[in-house]
Amino acid sequence: MESVKPIDIKSGMKVKDLVSEMSSSGVMGAGRISKAVEIMSAMKDDKDCKVFFGLAGAMVPGGMKNIVIDMLKNGYIDVFVTTGANMTHDLIEALGFHHYQGSQHVNDKELHKKGIDRIYDTFMKNEVYEKLEEFFNEHFDELKDETDIKEFLWKIGGLLEKDSILKTCYDKKIPIFCPGIADSGIGLMIWGHLAKGEAVQLKAFEDLKEIMDISWTSKKSGVIYIGGGVPKNYIQQAMQVTNGASYGIQITTDRPESGGSSGAELKEGISWGKMNEEGNYVNVICDATIALPLIYAAVK
Amino acid sequence: MESVKPIDIKSGMKVKDLVSEMSSSGVMGAGRISKAVEIMSAMKDDKDCKVFFGLAGAMVPGGMKNIVIDMLKNGYIDVFVTTGANMTHDLIEALGFHHYQGSQHVNDKELHKKGIDRIYDTFMKNEVYEKLEEFFNEHFDELKDETDIKEFLWKIGGLLEKDSILKTCYDKKIPIFCPGIADSGIGLMIWGHLAKGEAVQLKAFEDLKEIMDISWTSKKSGVIYIGGGVPKNYIQQAMQVTNGASYGIQITTDRPESGGSSGAELKEGISWGKMNEEGNYVNVICDATIALPLIYAAVK
Amino acid sequence: MESVKPIDIKSGMKVKDLVSEMSSSGVMGAGRISKAVEIMSAMKDDKDCKVFFGLAGAMVPGGMKNIVIDMLKNGYIDVFVTTGANMTHDLIEALGFHHYQGSQHVNDKELHKKGIDRIYDTFMKNEVYEKLEEFFNEHFDELKDETDIKEFLWKIGGLLEKDSILKTCYDKKIPIFCPGIADSGIGLMIWGHLAKGEAVQLKAFEDLKEIMDISWTSKKSGVIYIGGGVPKNYIQQAMQVTNGASYGIQITTDRPESGGSSGAELKEGISWGKMNEEGNYVNVICDATIALPLIYAAVK
Amino acid sequence: MESVKPIDIKSGMKVKDLVSEMSSSGVMGAGRISKAVEIMSAMKDDKDCKVFFGLAGAMVPGGMKNIVIDMLKNGYIDVFVTTGANMTHDLIEALGFHHYQGSQHVNDKELHKKGIDRIYDTFMKNEVYEKLEEFFNEHFDELKDETDIKEFLWKIGGLLEKDSILKTCYDKKIPIFCPGIADSGIGLMIWGHLAKGEAVQLKAFEDLKEIMDISWTSKKSGVIYIGGGVPKNYIQQAMQVTNGASYGIQITTDRPESGGSSGAELKEGISWGKMNEEGNYVNVICDATIALPLIYAAVK
Repeated sequence: MESVKPIDIKSGMKVKDLVSEMSSSGVMGAGRISKAVEIMSAMKDDKDCKVFFGLAGAMVPGGMKNIVIDMLKNGYIDVFVTTGANMTHDLIEALGFHHYQGSQHVNDKELHKKGIDRIYDTFMKNEVYEKLEEFFNEHFDELKDETDIKEFLWKIGGLLEKDSILKTCYDKKIPIFCPGIADSGIGLMIWGHLAKGEAVQLKAFEDLKEIMDISWTSKKSGVIYIGGGVPKNYIQQAMQVTNGASYGIQITTDRPESGGSSGAELKEGISWGKMNEEGNYVNVICDATIALPLIYAAVK
Repeated sequence: MESVKPIDIKSGMKVKDLVSEMSSSGVMGAGRISKAVEIMSAMKDDKDCKVFFGLAGAMVPGGMKNIVIDMLKNGYIDVFVTTGANMTHDLIEALGFHHYQGSQHVNDKELHKKGIDRIYDTFMKNEVYEKLEEFFNEHFDELKDETDIKEFLWKIGGLLEKDSILKTCYDKKIPIFCPGIADSGIGLMIWGHLAKGEAVQLKAFEDLKEIMDISWTSKKSGVIYIGGGVPKNYIQQAMQVTNGASYGIQITTDRPESGGSSGAELKEGISWGKMNEEGNYVNVICDATIALPLIYAAVK
Repeated sequence: MESVKPIDIKSGMKVKDLVSEMSSSGVMGAGRISKAVEIMSAMKDDKDCKVFFGLAGAMVPGGMKNIVIDMLKNGYIDVFVTTGANMTHDLIEALGFHHYQGSQHVNDKELHKKGIDRIYDTFMKNEVYEKLEEFFNEHFDELKDETDIKEFLWKIGGLLEKDSILKTCYDKKIPIFCPGIADSGIGLMIWGHLAKGEAVQLKAFEDLKEIMDISWTSKKSGVIYIGGGVPKNYIQQAMQVTNGASYGIQITTDRPESGGSSGAELKEGISWGKMNEEGNYVNVICDATIALPLIYAAVK
Repeated sequence: MESVKPIDIKSGMKVKDLVSEMSSSGVMGAGRISKAVEIMSAMKDDKDCKVFFGLAGAMVPGGMKNIVIDMLKNGYIDVFVTTGANMTHDLIEALGFHHYQGSQHVNDKELHKKGIDRIYDTFMKNEVYEKLEEFFNEHFDELKDETDIKEFLWKIGGLLEKDSILKTCYDKKIPIFCPGIADSGIGLMIWGHLAKGEAVQLKAFEDLKEIMDISWTSKKSGVIYIGGGVPKNYIQQAMQVTNGASYGIQITTDRPESGGSSGAELKEGISWGKMNEEGNYVNVICDATIALPLIYAAVK
């Protein structure tokens, strides 16, 4: 048995050295952070491994955008799966808007009067929707005939000038899957056109074959889940046609006992064949806005 | 100020009487359960109110199927929004299979060898997928040209003989929205056909206008969320074109601090206009397999 | 394998019947509630078993007082271990004060100005401290020479007229252990006398031998934990000199991953010999103000 | 409004720079970490402020010992309040034993046979109790007449050669308060002597006056809570005789809704006068083995 070596802190220490101390300690949350660092490095360095990254939660409002972009640009992510909400917030920032440092202890009625939308302690001006509307009005003709959600999101990315997740995926040709696209601010914008009698052609299953093919043809695969929801479950489903993921990292604050996928431990996936029996995986029980920057700063 | 009246328990008492005691106590979890009972009754009795029910989590494996069916049959739900996973598990049971009482303290490798899939402490035989495949092979021609996800799910419901959520929604013509349908066992079955070069026509936005129209044209609306994810968010989005929901119940074990929609308090929705400023709402922080039966037994 | 039988709800059903449905379902939170009911009945009916009940959290403000009293009066509890805070709140109500139905969405500065103390969504008037002070002034001579915390609390119970946990333990001669007594409103009252140069004789270890003797001499033991903290840990420690508890119920919302005793699963106790290897135990992950009334209404 | 500046990660960056990025982001968990860093620095630098540190949870097994020692040695802590369990684990390590990196996915019956005690994913050899027994046999005469828990713990610290929390508090004359001392392995050792008819003189209220005096006479006070339980509550109680703490940091994974002190937000303390209305405070919802090293590495 390896002993728990208490963590030593030195003034001015680097994140890598802090995580190295966490590794020597090796238990509880600290041990898991260090294991996630080790696994994220290993899956990037493994030339045979395709990394599937699932991003749920309010991670763009939560300030995680640049980390995701950096990971996309530097080869940490081969397949990107996310929610419509994250893509909407990314688009909003790409159109020049911001999210703001707010508070959860507020009068929501007053916020409503002021036109401010709250995401826990983060604020967004409701006027962003007008700009979104303009954007979709301007580009509707280019977008309306697209049948494939991934291509649709790439097209949007191609229209953007500012650095963003969408633009990066487009530039790097990293597939973005977003099966729940209708459930988002982008969905609302499309609805605006549907309500005017216009039509869009996006098909619900057009790109399913593509993610399954990537999964099927990869020698090995790794999964990284920020939160749960559709992004996690959609990747887990793609893992079922492999030997199971060889590497896995999950960062969540949900808990497993009520049975939902978002809180389920990665170990459960072994029974389904979604995680390989010999896979190296870790569940980090932590707010992703703490854990992801900490892990990535130690990996990079 | 109303005093907290300690809860009194009587031998053989009815659920309604227990919840009445919880109402007199009025605080913490007990107070919230009683408030949920009051709100669920009120939204059903309000003739002007359309009730939107969002079901996420592993609620069919968790034994909640008959409660959902009963609520659908008895007028507690006007619009049903759920995940592909719940529809898949419902279909599996409708085809004659079961979920089983298992354990979370198991060797997942051994389960995998035995062909058993684990959902926390619930087991499912992997062989269900063969039966699902047969079902979709047999009915593929009837299903493949459908463009609307809601109609597609109704069609499946119409093909079933056993009581199920799908069949009930079909029989009662209660709209089922499932924007993330590709992310599910049903999605995997469709993929099997795509892989053989066949095609399906389901469109990602075909039924968005319908849920928005229902929301837009309702005099008042109420929301019930079991878990979060796409079902909650998709309904919340539909609420943005109303005056905000007049009634709200959310049952979840996720927490708000990391900013995701699944753990967000309903109060936050006021800032967005998703919840009415004068709305009556409650967040029940509880495993839904405890809270939903308790609440519904007191309401019915 | 036993199948998960979906829970059926009948109008006007009894709590016992609801829990019986939860037992047929058998999984997730519902399954655990039904198992807790079965175990609480079994440990009461087992004539060889002494039941140790650990009560932490704000359970008197939370309206659980009468359930605890009822359990004490009806033979469900042989040894009672709690926090100073619960005993203080119990004493406050016994002196004629109340807790009130408040809200967590308040301006705490304004509450402070109004002399209202907040316990999440429950309020208490700060003036209770004056009455507590009077009580301890009046009875200080009777209490100051007591060396044993248990006897001290019994003496207080003997002075009360209103029904209360303290009075019930005194009347029924059920030992109350409260090792953290100094950490409470009662502690503050004693401090008032210490500050005036008076002395009390209570010894920190005087009644430790007694709980250990009860534990040591019991043929079998059962444990019920509402929350964690000192009450749980103190009982767990007493279990170490037995063959381990034969029965165990824990109701908590804390989680295990950060390693603290309050969130630790009962199973962990097997390694320590605190839980018997063949013991029947269950962890109910739930707000105790929901789970305890539900369980006890089905048991009684 | 300040905008959320997305966090940028640089290769080889220092912890201070990572936390500076978190500060520019300013929201959710990352924002709270940066605020905790700012507050911990401020309360140390404020010459008028006495810092009360409450340590609950399994923080010595969890590898946090050296951070606590370092904080004690470098003036970050003026008053130390903890559980008997942490003092026992500290003593165990000071006597030459270790905790080990284990796993939560184990057969606890087999661990029991091997004499290994489990603390979530951390192991301890049960043989440590023999050494503890020897220690208390050897020193019982020096310890048995002590009436003050703080002095008793200092005496133990004075007997130790290895660096430890106990020895550091003794060396630096930093008061250790541990009102629940009877609830711990140390308590079990004392019980061994009580069972042989020997006696100890520790009084439950002997050092209460001392912590209240420190609190009462401090110009300003700050509180740091790792977990909740008695350590938090005992400090909170001491704050009631001040103007309320001017600074506050709480790191916990428990949640507020069930009303217990361990999950209660610091803001609640304002109503009681435990937190100053103008106080600067933050609740960090995080595993302390992640948050404490991260925060302290940025502060130091």
